[in-house]
Amino acid sequence: MGRVVIDVMPKPEILDPQGKAVVGALPRLGFDLFTSVRQGRRFELEVEGDVTPEVLAQARQAAEKLLSNPVIEDVVSVRDAAGAPEASA
Amino acid sequence: MGRVVIDVMPKPEILDPQGKAVVGALPRLGFDLFTSVRQGRRFELEVEGDVTPEVLAQARQAAEKLLSNPVIEDVVSVRDAAGAPEASA
Repeated sequence: MGRVVIDVMPKPEILDPQGKAVVGALPRLGFDLFTSVRQGRRFELEVEGDVTPEVLAQARQAAEKLLSNPVIEDVVSVRDAAGAPEASA
Repeated sequence: MGRVVIDVMPKPEILDPQGKAVVGALPRLGFDLFTSVRQGRRFELEVEGDVTPEVLAQARQAAEKLLSNPVIEDVVSVRDAAGAPEASA
């Protein structure tokens, strides 16, 4: 059984209110090293067999059509959880 | 400027309604290769200098205390975005 990991993050120019809330809360809890936080989403998709180039291509399409909102988010990574990144990434 | 990436996923035994919604929608859009989807969160934390072991240790603490809900989520990764994983991960 294979697994594909997809990472989706808010575009850099888009305000990220969840990240802002986190960066404001961190110093109040004693975490004083961080200057900026962005919060995005991570998906794990399982397939029956191995993670082939076809699987990665379909995962990339799904990421762009269903899993992300292209107006405000970027698909930053589509890769085999076992290690090999998408050839075209 | 360094960047730490933190991945948080729902625990395997916890129902993930967002993942269920995605896995139901995929075949309707023609994506027929995926048998299971889990949706979690990805954080990018920036620091002024390099990502030192101290930075990774504080990021790990922040991930467990603030960024995740330990009842329903696991912190699956805390790493330097530039490549090196947390020594203790």
